[in-house]
Amino acid sequence: MQTVPLKLVTIIAEAFLEEKLVREVKKLGASGYTLSPARGEGSRGVRASEWEGGNVRLEVVASPQVAERILERLAEVYFPSYAVIAFTQTVEVVRGEKYA
Amino acid sequence: MQTVPLKLVTIIAEAFLEEKLVREVKKLGASGYTLSPARGEGSRGVRASEWEGGNVRLEVVASPQVAERILERLAEVYFPSYAVIAFTQTVEVVRGEKYA
Amino acid sequence: MQTVPLKLVTIIAEAFLEEKLVREVKKLGASGYTLSPARGEGSRGVRASEWEGGNVRLEVVASPQVAERILERLAEVYFPSYAVIAFTQTVEVVRGEKYA
Repeated sequence: MQTVPLKLVTIIAEAFLEEKLVREVKKLGASGYTLSPARGEGSRGVRASEWEGGNVRLEVVASPQVAERILERLAEVYFPSYAVIAFTQTVEVVRGEKYA
Repeated sequence: MQTVPLKLVTIIAEAFLEEKLVREVKKLGASGYTLSPARGEGSRGVRASEWEGGNVRLEVVASPQVAERILERLAEVYFPSYAVIAFTQTVEVVRGEKYA
Repeated sequence: MQTVPLKLVTIIAEAFLEEKLVREVKKLGASGYTLSPARGEGSRGVRASEWEGGNVRLEVVASPQVAERILERLAEVYFPSYAVIAFTQTVEVVRGEKYA
């Protein structure tokens, strides 16, 4: 099975940021995204239950270039103000040419 | 801690495919699976909210051989007709011998 | 974008273990965690629907040392008695120094 190595970008953020983050990743070149519910506690000691609506997990499969742009934008705009976690991994994607 | 390198196969698909996909991965040799809710938008521009019941994330920890069979089956039967994302990663699994 | 390679520990367990597992990972040095809903079937053939409340996915981004301690504790206390899956991956984390 032929696969393409791409980046999976995972962002965990307060749920009220969902729309804003989706707009950002699309503007930065993501061809799609996946959202799923989450809750938790971060190094700031803020529990999800104290936030309106908990957390959201936003995942994007993208080229290394688009992944890089997303991380840069997060670091510039979101990390200074919000409890956001972001990390990337290399994944082997079926029909990966659709995301590049 | 001894771990075994195995494949984590992640499939994100329209929720109505859940039962069908679970049957497939079990038939292809998966000893277990995890389902979680998801929603999103893909490169076909179809929003989850327009689908009945959103998306489902199906994850399987399996040997490279079983993972390969799952991807092949997806490519053959599901990718031509459905908005499916599938990717694999190597993960280090505790008690991994149970999955091989 | 500078990132730090860290371990993502993923634990999928019966939902009633949630509080206990969260206490464990915090005691073992995790600075945060993410919880999300899940359900599924494992190699013991127990379906989530037969369990009270399904499954929970607990994720921790941590140093290799903390990740190792978590896996050891799971192997010692949880694996003998519960249907638990646990695996680790290396992820590239933005502001990773907060987790080390």
